Amino acid sequence: MSPPGFSNFKFFNVTVPSQHVVHVEINRPEKMNAFYGPMWFELKAIFEQVSVDPEVRCVLLSGAGDRAFTAGLDVAEASKPDNPLTSPGAIDPSRKATILRRHILELQDVVSSLARCEKPIIALMHGYTFGLGIDLSSACDIRFCLADTKFCVKEVDIGLAADVGTLSRLPKVVGGVTSWVKEICLSARVFSAEEAKQNNFVSRVISGGKAELLKEGLSFAQYIAGKSPVAVQGTKAILDAAWGRTVEDNLNYTAVWNAGMLQSTDVQRAMLSGLRKKTPTFEKL
Amino acid sequence: MSPPGFSNFKFFNVTVPSQHVVHVEINRPEKMNAFYGPMWFELKAIFEQVSVDPEVRCVLLSGAGDRAFTAGLDVAEASKPDNPLTSPGAIDPSRKATILRRHILELQDVVSSLARCEKPIIALMHGYTFGLGIDLSSACDIRFCLADTKFCVKEVDIGLAADVGTLSRLPKVVGGVTSWVKEICLSARVFSAEEAKQNNFVSRVISGGKAELLKEGLSFAQYIAGKSPVAVQGTKAILDAAWGRTVEDNLNYTAVWNAGMLQSTDVQRAMLSGLRKKTPTFEKL
Amino acid sequence: MSPPGFSNFKFFNVTVPSQHVVHVEINRPEKMNAFYGPMWFELKAIFEQVSVDPEVRCVLLSGAGDRAFTAGLDVAEASKPDNPLTSPGAIDPSRKATILRRHILELQDVVSSLARCEKPIIALMHGYTFGLGIDLSSACDIRFCLADTKFCVKEVDIGLAADVGTLSRLPKVVGGVTSWVKEICLSARVFSAEEAKQNNFVSRVISGGKAELLKEGLSFAQYIAGKSPVAVQGTKAILDAAWGRTVEDNLNYTAVWNAGMLQSTDVQRAMLSGLRKKTPTFEKL
Amino acid sequence: MSPPGFSNFKFFNVTVPSQHVVHVEINRPEKMNAFYGPMWFELKAIFEQVSVDPEVRCVLLSGAGDRAFTAGLDVAEASKPDNPLTSPGAIDPSRKATILRRHILELQDVVSSLARCEKPIIALMHGYTFGLGIDLSSACDIRFCLADTKFCVKEVDIGLAADVGTLSRLPKVVGGVTSWVKEICLSARVFSAEEAKQNNFVSRVISGGKAELLKEGLSFAQYIAGKSPVAVQGTKAILDAAWGRTVEDNLNYTAVWNAGMLQSTDVQRAMLSGLRKKTPTFEKL
Amino acid sequence: MSPPGFSNFKFFNVTVPSQHVVHVEINRPEKMNAFYGPMWFELKAIFEQVSVDPEVRCVLLSGAGDRAFTAGLDVAEASKPDNPLTSPGAIDPSRKATILRRHILELQDVVSSLARCEKPIIALMHGYTFGLGIDLSSACDIRFCLADTKFCVKEVDIGLAADVGTLSRLPKVVGGVTSWVKEICLSARVFSAEEAKQNNFVSRVISGGKAELLKEGLSFAQYIAGKSPVAVQGTKAILDAAWGRTVEDNLNYTAVWNAGMLQSTDVQRAMLSGLRKKTPTFEKL
Amino acid sequence: MSPPGFSNFKFFNVTVPSQHVVHVEINRPEKMNAFYGPMWFELKAIFEQVSVDPEVRCVLLSGAGDRAFTAGLDVAEASKPDNPLTSPGAIDPSRKATILRRHILELQDVVSSLARCEKPIIALMHGYTFGLGIDLSSACDIRFCLADTKFCVKEVDIGLAADVGTLSRLPKVVGGVTSWVKEICLSARVFSAEEAKQNNFVSRVISGGKAELLKEGLSFAQYIAGKSPVAVQGTKAILDAAWGRTVEDNLNYTAVWNAGMLQSTDVQRAMLSGLRKKTPTFEKL
Repeated sequence: MSPPGFSNFKFFNVTVPSQHVVHVEINRPEKMNAFYGPMWFELKAIFEQVSVDPEVRCVLLSGAGDRAFTAGLDVAEASKPDNPLTSPGAIDPSRKATILRRHILELQDVVSSLARCEKPIIALMHGYTFGLGIDLSSACDIRFCLADTKFCVKEVDIGLAADVGTLSRLPKVVGGVTSWVKEICLSARVFSAEEAKQNNFVSRVISGGKAELLKEGLSFAQYIAGKSPVAVQGTKAILDAAWGRTVEDNLNYTAVWNAGMLQSTDVQRAMLSGLRKKTPTFEKL
Repeated sequence: MSPPGFSNFKFFNVTVPSQHVVHVEINRPEKMNAFYGPMWFELKAIFEQVSVDPEVRCVLLSGAGDRAFTAGLDVAEASKPDNPLTSPGAIDPSRKATILRRHILELQDVVSSLARCEKPIIALMHGYTFGLGIDLSSACDIRFCLADTKFCVKEVDIGLAADVGTLSRLPKVVGGVTSWVKEICLSARVFSAEEAKQNNFVSRVISGGKAELLKEGLSFAQYIAGKSPVAVQGTKAILDAAWGRTVEDNLNYTAVWNAGMLQSTDVQRAMLSGLRKKTPTFEKL
Repeated sequence: MSPPGFSNFKFFNVTVPSQHVVHVEINRPEKMNAFYGPMWFELKAIFEQVSVDPEVRCVLLSGAGDRAFTAGLDVAEASKPDNPLTSPGAIDPSRKATILRRHILELQDVVSSLARCEKPIIALMHGYTFGLGIDLSSACDIRFCLADTKFCVKEVDIGLAADVGTLSRLPKVVGGVTSWVKEICLSARVFSAEEAKQNNFVSRVISGGKAELLKEGLSFAQYIAGKSPVAVQGTKAILDAAWGRTVEDNLNYTAVWNAGMLQSTDVQRAMLSGLRKKTPTFEKL
Repeated sequence: MSPPGFSNFKFFNVTVPSQHVVHVEINRPEKMNAFYGPMWFELKAIFEQVSVDPEVRCVLLSGAGDRAFTAGLDVAEASKPDNPLTSPGAIDPSRKATILRRHILELQDVVSSLARCEKPIIALMHGYTFGLGIDLSSACDIRFCLADTKFCVKEVDIGLAADVGTLSRLPKVVGGVTSWVKEICLSARVFSAEEAKQNNFVSRVISGGKAELLKEGLSFAQYIAGKSPVAVQGTKAILDAAWGRTVEDNLNYTAVWNAGMLQSTDVQRAMLSGLRKKTPTFEKL
Repeated sequence: MSPPGFSNFKFFNVTVPSQHVVHVEINRPEKMNAFYGPMWFELKAIFEQVSVDPEVRCVLLSGAGDRAFTAGLDVAEASKPDNPLTSPGAIDPSRKATILRRHILELQDVVSSLARCEKPIIALMHGYTFGLGIDLSSACDIRFCLADTKFCVKEVDIGLAADVGTLSRLPKVVGGVTSWVKEICLSARVFSAEEAKQNNFVSRVISGGKAELLKEGLSFAQYIAGKSPVAVQGTKAILDAAWGRTVEDNLNYTAVWNAGMLQSTDVQRAMLSGLRKKTPTFEKL
Repeated sequence: MSPPGFSNFKFFNVTVPSQHVVHVEINRPEKMNAFYGPMWFELKAIFEQVSVDPEVRCVLLSGAGDRAFTAGLDVAEASKPDNPLTSPGAIDPSRKATILRRHILELQDVVSSLARCEKPIIALMHGYTFGLGIDLSSACDIRFCLADTKFCVKEVDIGLAADVGTLSRLPKVVGGVTSWVKEICLSARVFSAEEAKQNNFVSRVISGGKAELLKEGLSFAQYIAGKSPVAVQGTKAILDAAWGRTVEDNLNYTAVWNAGMLQSTDVQRAMLSGLRKKTPTFEKL
């Protein structure tokens, strides 16, 4: 059952495992959580709602079943004739280009709804995390995985340059266009959890099974949810604006952001609690 | 005693441990080198002077005492009524926002005086390196620490998004907006020297105590001070301009910079010394 | 003998070790593959040709002989009187600056011909990889090295800030302006293969000797050459555009790029082969 | 009656005065076409539909009635208690800031739906064109007005810096942050059609009354609608990307855009028609 | 006599001709208000004070005497031996380059203190407005001039590319790098008030003499000073950030800025006064 | 006859009408100076030579014959089967896109060779100035025309978005993406000299015929050629870098540029000549 305030979704389980924490589970395990048409729109709807829900302070994203976070795009579905990518028809290439561009922008916008979500998102990955799995988790803030996770920037294997976010966000979240980034993106080779950790894609590789993964994810989400939401959400916004802009521009942006935000009652509450060694509570945001 | 050419400062020891090397020590050990009002202005004055002093080729920054590089902002001081951050008074929020913005820009400018310093700065960190400790060391060029250093991007714990530089410079100095960067900035959890090394924040974790830290810092500073100052200072300037700009713009900037700088007598001196296996000496800069 | 379609070059061996793979070997081993005047123009000519040769899908770059990938600029040659860098003559500093700027831009353009090459380049490094060796390999896509490789951003030692690419591309390919980047660039100290791996400069340190290095390089080049060239070359182009630009701009660029490229027959071929567990073949590009 | 394919809208008349041309008329003349809540969402819905409707090649935007294009925000409505801008309640300033920011971004997004519309929009202005009237018309491509139009960047008069687009787009559409731009934005003084023409805000001041304005607008829209839609829409997209980016980046973007678009059958049709002195026809886009 | 709160300055008359309006007059008429050493520092001190003085809402900048706004740099003074620009001495060109760069940055910072001033500045120009006169007025917000003003981007005539702001700001304030901008900057030819108006450099050419110029300047300054200072100063800040950045970035900046600023009591006061047809009063800022 | 140092060109007359001034005349008057294949390469060769020829200080670009500056692309030639734009053949759209992109980048590079030319170029336009005529003249620094010039951004009429520079440079040289820019680019309508002047595209409309045009062009070129070439060329470089970058970045670029250039002997010569009321002479550049 979905928590109050959340509609029922067909392809996602949305639950509230703990106060201020929402868990979004991709729920198509029989297809290794592969994505097709209607799932995209549900996903965007969920994150647009979460973004502004004042009860939510941290989000977990995981995949149902034992086998996969998500195996990526459902290629069998994508091969069907109504898909813009593969639809036949001898239409003019410039017109087909227009249709494709609109379609890509639309899918990018779904993935970007995670990046735009005002609340931090922790991706919890296990098993197959292929293609779209990299796009989606790169749009999250924090990435944890199990030791057995198999990652792959799969797109080259289906004849295309990854188009819905990986190539734009992977350099941002691992730091630069490294030799390793080029290796995995140009070859579509599978990489391990250990490799993901060494190359800064995940910050934690968790021992054990999915239960341990969810437990550690929830524990860290609760930790963040206990902090001032004004501080946490501002930190996310400012950090994300650092990429592709100069330090000077980001410093100025920080000053303007904080001009409004430092007036928060959270500052007094947090400082006072700190001095009194007590746990502060904060108003909704 | 301060070296000739440096005024006496109340909160900082400024010494010249070796030719061309200046050591700036934060000197408020009884408060774990925590910062409050007057210290900011001294710090800026020191680095503005060092930046253009032709005798200086490399700078060390450390904290006095055994306990801390700096514990950050002195929260007790910051809670006093005359601080813009916490001053009461039911003034109009837009006017308070203006005052806060000016105040943040002023403090940012102090931290930026380190980043703007034409000479390389090596931060030598030990013990508590919290809040402002991260802001300051991120504005340095090179970071070494002792194995027992305790780091923390503390700001979320006092109800605010870090506002004087960390969020703008940490992605630059560790490479991207990684999962680890988000982890430590969103949660304000403490991280260790080992973690700092694995995530590229420091380039060396030094065994032993403060004496070893200072010794290794000084040794490396002397090494840099032996190089052509024209080459060293140009390298710093060009590297810092790489972030947030394209490779093409940076290449052009390098060409314009070097149009003037390659006319240096240092080039002939360095080349000749190299061929003759001798140690070159260079004019002041 | 050079392969059909490639002219004979004096300072480079250009061979085709395998279908769609070209191997460019710097061939001046008696001088540790150090560069001087005429070599620059050959290098650019080779990569401009490779970039658009429809038979080529992946390129290897290595150095002949046992001792060096390249020891960098041939300083003895650079010290000769006809070199703009060191030519005497009491000409007006502004006019000398103009000549130097043009000269730097010309050399930068040679190094940039590798970065602009539409096909991925794998740098295979061993022995001395100094100065220009870092400039060149930073302009490649993937970097492998032997365990005994000795790296050095050497320019500070000859009195100048590295001017033909290292300072602009190193932050891009290792991720940020890290403490380590500043360490090695400001000091010109030698660093090891292990250090290069830990700091993301190379993605693989290969055990054994040059034979093993070339074998692993060739093997990976063949793997990439088996993929859709439309997908591979698009991936390279989009990843390289990520640095210094915002995620939003890069996403839009990706959409426009793929509007034309997703109409490729490679997509159907790759998808169909994937479903049929066969190896696809792709038209030239 | 709305044309087939367009829903009925309450506050806008949407008609098809000529093949491929849509006319959107703001229809609240009794309030001088001032905007309030529900109108925003209708406006966005219309332009999102127009943007991708293959029958549409050019759009006209005008205001119903004799008195105004639009008098701007309906201040009386905006003063009501449910408006985020003016709602009372002693909530925490940081939380109010968050609500306001979301609200502004939402309204900006409506105005940006005009800027994002793939088809060119011609704003036809008469009478009062205040506040939001400047925001909206600045997001259009071409601006014509009657000689009696009264323009005003009104926001300073209601105590705020214009927040939904004028300050971001006026410098782009008139060329720079001129003395005149500062004059009218800092003072909220009314400016005339003649002044608008001299300062490049409108490209035509039309003599006569609304009939003449609509006639000339329609005539020019028909002229554009007769051209290749691939060429027209590409031209709009590339021109809009010129602002805030370098010439080099824009040239590259143009090349990537046209890689797909020059394959259009429109090129052959247009060239052939040109040589044969005939009027070409083009497929839908 | 200077107004309360302003120190006495040697080279500038600083008066308060009307509530909230400050008049800064360059006062070295015997040298046609040409600038030399000590004047720069006074100018910066004045504008840093004005920027944050809560009594000030608008600033006028003019030149004393009948002959000039300012004739620019005092070349006779600049030719003296202690000037970095012309000091003799056979020092190393790279070291001289460093000294020159620091000196230029210092002078640029003086001119930028006008651009950074939070309050709008109206430049009132007459007679000779040469060299630095263009740098300074380009850093103001609004430019009015008398019909007899003689403008000149004079630097090419003294052998240098204008270095303290004109080349960076003129494209911003007249709109682009037009043929006219190139004409006047490459040739150092004098241009008239009429030409300045036609090319958007000034927004008003005023008939009559200095009295009329000052009167119209004061009148417009009073008009602006009557508006909400929160609205006026926000408008200036956001407009200035439009140049060199994308519309999307500027829209976001506007939203963040206004998140704090729309909470101003000025909004209610302004709206209410508007509805009641009364003149609002606003708190200091 | 071409001047010493210039090769003979087939499609261009290159002469030296006056010391330091080169005149490049497009010379295919029987085809209204329309461009086809071989002309592009000659044009680039000329401007690459002119850019670094120390004898040249200013360049004139005009069209031979009475009828046209240039009628643009020779559409009849472009329609021939070997042109990438219109070549038939059912090749894969992604591969055709690659070929087209390379071809466009190559042609853009020719036009950019004018923009990159270190010496100022004055375009002197008469008669038909269509399509490529706008691309080329937009890449020049200064634009003069006769009163009878007929301008047209013609590309939409041949089914494409202008691809070799107009859309990227027109906003830069007229100031923004104005209503007028959109009008002429979206409609391909012809515009007059007067319109070109009003909208800042040309800075002078010259009365009379071609003789007067050439005379005024030459006169102004001589005027510029009399100034310090260090100052003139620096001014061009810095002004061109202003577009698409922030004022802050441009100021810093100016400081670095001038660090080398202010050491010019031109400064002393120019200042001294100014004080002595003599005409200075300057060394070659």
